[in-house]
Amino acid sequence: MSEGNSTAGGNTEGRRLAELAKRRGFFFQSSGAYGGVAGFYTYGPQGATLKTNLEEAWRDRFVTREGHMEIDAPDVMPEAVFEASGHLDTFDDMIVECPACDATHRADHLIEDATDIEEAESMANEAAMEVIADHEVGCPSCGEPLADEPVDNFNLMFGTNIGPGDAAPGYLRPETAQGIFVEFPQLAEYARNQLPFGVAQVGKAYRNEISPRKSLVRVREFTQAELEHFVDPETDEPPLERVADVELPLYAAAAQQREEGTAVEMTVQEAVNEGVIESEWVAFYLGLAAGWYDRVGVDMDRFRYRQHLPGELSHYASDCWDAESEVDGDWVEVTGFAYRGDYDLTNHAAHSGEDYDIFKQYDEPVTVERPTVDPDMSELGPTFGGEAEAVAEALADLAGRNPDAFEGNTVTVEVDGGERTVPVEQTGFAVEEVTEAGERVTPHVVEPSFGVGRLVYTVLAHAYETDVVDGEERTYLSLPSALAPTTVGVFPLMDRDGLGDRAREVATQLREAGLAVTYDDSGAIGRRYRRQDEVGTPFCVTVDYDTLGEGDSPDLAGTVTVRERDTTSQRRVAVEELSETLQSLRRGDIGFGDLG
Amino acid sequence: MSEGNSTAGGNTEGRRLAELAKRRGFFFQSSGAYGGVAGFYTYGPQGATLKTNLEEAWRDRFVTREGHMEIDAPDVMPEAVFEASGHLDTFDDMIVECPACDATHRADHLIEDATDIEEAESMANEAAMEVIADHEVGCPSCGEPLADEPVDNFNLMFGTNIGPGDAAPGYLRPETAQGIFVEFPQLAEYARNQLPFGVAQVGKAYRNEISPRKSLVRVREFTQAELEHFVDPETDEPPLERVADVELPLYAAAAQQREEGTAVEMTVQEAVNEGVIESEWVAFYLGLAAGWYDRVGVDMDRFRYRQHLPGELSHYASDCWDAESEVDGDWVEVTGFAYRGDYDLTNHAAHSGEDYDIFKQYDEPVTVERPTVDPDMSELGPTFGGEAEAVAEALADLAGRNPDAFEGNTVTVEVDGGERTVPVEQTGFAVEEVTEAGERVTPHVVEPSFGVGRLVYTVLAHAYETDVVDGEERTYLSLPSALAPTTVGVFPLMDRDGLGDRAREVATQLREAGLAVTYDDSGAIGRRYRRQDEVGTPFCVTVDYDTLGEGDSPDLAGTVTVRERDTTSQRRVAVEELSETLQSLRRGDIGFGDLG
Repeated sequence: MSEGNSTAGGNTEGRRLAELAKRRGFFFQSSGAYGGVAGFYTYGPQGATLKTNLEEAWRDRFVTREGHMEIDAPDVMPEAVFEASGHLDTFDDMIVECPACDATHRADHLIEDATDIEEAESMANEAAMEVIADHEVGCPSCGEPLADEPVDNFNLMFGTNIGPGDAAPGYLRPETAQGIFVEFPQLAEYARNQLPFGVAQVGKAYRNEISPRKSLVRVREFTQAELEHFVDPETDEPPLERVADVELPLYAAAAQQREEGTAVEMTVQEAVNEGVIESEWVAFYLGLAAGWYDRVGVDMDRFRYRQHLPGELSHYASDCWDAESEVDGDWVEVTGFAYRGDYDLTNHAAHSGEDYDIFKQYDEPVTVERPTVDPDMSELGPTFGGEAEAVAEALADLAGRNPDAFEGNTVTVEVDGGERTVPVEQTGFAVEEVTEAGERVTPHVVEPSFGVGRLVYTVLAHAYETDVVDGEERTYLSLPSALAPTTVGVFPLMDRDGLGDRAREVATQLREAGLAVTYDDSGAIGRRYRRQDEVGTPFCVTVDYDTLGEGDSPDLAGTVTVRERDTTSQRRVAVEELSETLQSLRRGDIGFGDLG
Repeated sequence: MSEGNSTAGGNTEGRRLAELAKRRGFFFQSSGAYGGVAGFYTYGPQGATLKTNLEEAWRDRFVTREGHMEIDAPDVMPEAVFEASGHLDTFDDMIVECPACDATHRADHLIEDATDIEEAESMANEAAMEVIADHEVGCPSCGEPLADEPVDNFNLMFGTNIGPGDAAPGYLRPETAQGIFVEFPQLAEYARNQLPFGVAQVGKAYRNEISPRKSLVRVREFTQAELEHFVDPETDEPPLERVADVELPLYAAAAQQREEGTAVEMTVQEAVNEGVIESEWVAFYLGLAAGWYDRVGVDMDRFRYRQHLPGELSHYASDCWDAESEVDGDWVEVTGFAYRGDYDLTNHAAHSGEDYDIFKQYDEPVTVERPTVDPDMSELGPTFGGEAEAVAEALADLAGRNPDAFEGNTVTVEVDGGERTVPVEQTGFAVEEVTEAGERVTPHVVEPSFGVGRLVYTVLAHAYETDVVDGEERTYLSLPSALAPTTVGVFPLMDRDGLGDRAREVATQLREAGLAVTYDDSGAIGRRYRRQDEVGTPFCVTVDYDTLGEGDSPDLAGTVTVRERDTTSQRRVAVEELSETLQSLRRGDIGFGDLG
């Protein structure tokens, strides 16, 4: 995934989120006790569970329900894989090192900050050096001039060695996709060599960024959820009818070039009909994903699909769209949708010598005419001497290209820049009828590639709400119930008179039913509600004297108060129906208002 | 985790399993197109889902139901973490390189193979060299004598560099545990500084093994599911009553030393009472895990808990037991249960200077007497000159150690090897009453550490069954329904007369209900059953002419055949009840025999 397209904007939202994330256990910079390391984050108890829930929602939507396969490949891969994929040669950043303080900086970022140049990444290193000198760019860390410092390429893959010594270099994969592509021959077997089929992977990827920043947005180790959909480019079509009417907020390349600044709503079908989206496969996935983003808590008023500009496209991709969410005034790429063609499979086939294609059987065998030659070398040998083999090869080549040339008495071919004429009867020319059962097809690849951490970040940012309850300001996360790390907080009104014991029983009962439960008996009940509000727990259950049959309302014995996070409204529910009710609420089968 | 304790045994079971695993998509060696890399495996579609299901079952049992926290920390960690943990200095293998063919071997393995020496790993390198020379040990690859070749330590961590250059070395974590320990100060906050609390992590770990082998058993990249349970060593006790009656197959250290060869069954309570298991916390987890292994498909007749021998114990651990499964005549360690004491937290506290302890509040504040001094420097200064400060410090020290020394008129301290005498009235000695609200406690750690890949391997090996059906030999995997990668295979009897369309509708309906479905319409129906049997799919659904109301039995319209894997028995179930029925079967709420 490329960097999110950054627009000017404050960072209040980001700072507020980072503070909540650390305090409440969503995420924080790792190894803080040793000063921390830029670009490495640990998901705390709330964040790890939110992330797991998001991954499960993704798997349910893009793998299970679509009938695709999922694999789990290693993070460390051998060098040959990245020679083939091109990462070893070209997965670089342009860097310059300060001679005074040894800090390393992205040369393209320095140039973009100091000049009007956009996309400085595409400049040659020498040109970049000249611009740095001409504009007297200084080191952002210490101010020292950077003129005449070499601009170098820095490969973004983390390298290591497999086994002792350095004979077997390995790399941490910079994208999960290669773990799928390299195993295509095996995976095609599992798909019984029938196109189309999809293979997904959810796992870690690693990029040794020069300047990690913006919290979870640009990190050195992150989680991707990628689907590689292998399709027959000639015959496979996506089930566009399933998503034809889905409305998409599209910010097309043309609109970006006109600097319109806003996305336009149109349906998937309209976008395909009007040629706004070039690939029907990409259009299908934009449609399928739109509903999913909404369900997992992305604010669709702060969301758009942005088409890659021509200069931004990877050389192998014919049409790319990014899903972008707005956080803190910046647009963050959360998913890339690419039509990668046969680039990846063709490269692995060329580098490994293995078959990265599929034998596609025709419905019925096809009989074709195939012109062949079988030159009489006892004639050609004496005539052409050392050139005889080359003449024979040229004849075979000509027969394939232009069989009509063999219709006269002689045929002329070019060898080493000179013409050589051969009697047709010495060529052994014939047209054979060949019956073919099928042909070999290199599949094309459609790839939706989701950044899980950036989605967690987006969902948290978009769920952040404040209101006033009982005269006090309240912060809460309006996370979808199915995604919230904790489904229910269980409290005794106080930890006395048996209230605590009863509440612990209730908590155990709910855990046995598979619900994610937090038990809390410390501090005032309002304070406990606030704590759960801040981590997005959709429901809280309170055990009070009525539950024990010792309150003012004897008919409330055996019931508890259930409180909904967003509205703070409350209902009484019988303890024996509690697991079932909360499961139904979590799944969205019923709403809170449906409770008695 | 240490290596599984290997006994003599064939490898038929392992070979048979590896063949099935590759052919049917459970696991295979990665990057085969480039010759493969030893110790790296890719989980195929069946294996990845089986692994995910196993991880979810673990999380449900050891995290959710116990109310513990789970985190997700990076795989790449900075050097300082492993300086503190001891991995940088001591996480080594003893290696020797062949001067002829450059192959590297485990020196301790060579010695154990060539001599009667056991646990050669604990030898000094020089002693190992001598043994190799004395026994004329040769290179296993080419036969060249290894005498006089140096025996070296090889650190098993994969190293890399964070950022450009080598100023910030990083390592792939050799265990997920360090990602938890290093963040203890933050995690204790999330637990509101209340002991006990547990923090889990499911993630990758990496060890640069010299000799990866035995398929998934000894690999270089693997998945761990670890729980670190932080407890107050003085006051926290495990809820032993929950597992007191669970029967454990225990192979204690004493029995191993007597070479009895077999485990003894006893309950958790008996094992604790008789002192067979030293730590009650370890006993609790052995009991909790036993039922879980059984549920996820470990054959408990091929399972034991083996206590570490005294020489095998990590220096920090006071009692360790391994859960071991028998595969192919070898015992494979699938989980390590260790009482790690305060080793990890104390080390991180010492290396980072941060607090890795908990402030434990007393139920009631405690008043203690604390002797203090407040020396009169206007007297000490002129008397002792440059030594006055040192004398004052020595007085403070003495007051803490031995307040009685201040009962006379003078007090004598030692400074720089000489005695210095001070009138007590100049020391400002006093005994203050101090009220303390609590004390700082460094928690102890109880760690059950599960190897997910080895469990996948065990569960597959133990599920492998053959029988004879319709006169033909059949292979099937008797995986628990909840763990099977595919829950249901859906087949049309044939893909004609609308049977295929109806079957595809049924498959879609089941997928929408969240079930893992495989659709298959190719080949004879018996062949399709066998394919699902081999991947352990517990149920198959067939759409036939009866389903369409076009068979001999009009009352079967709208029903399908459901077939159970292990018994191959069949029942008719209405399509409209199918999702619900299969979900209930999968959860184990009903048995197949309960169907009409």
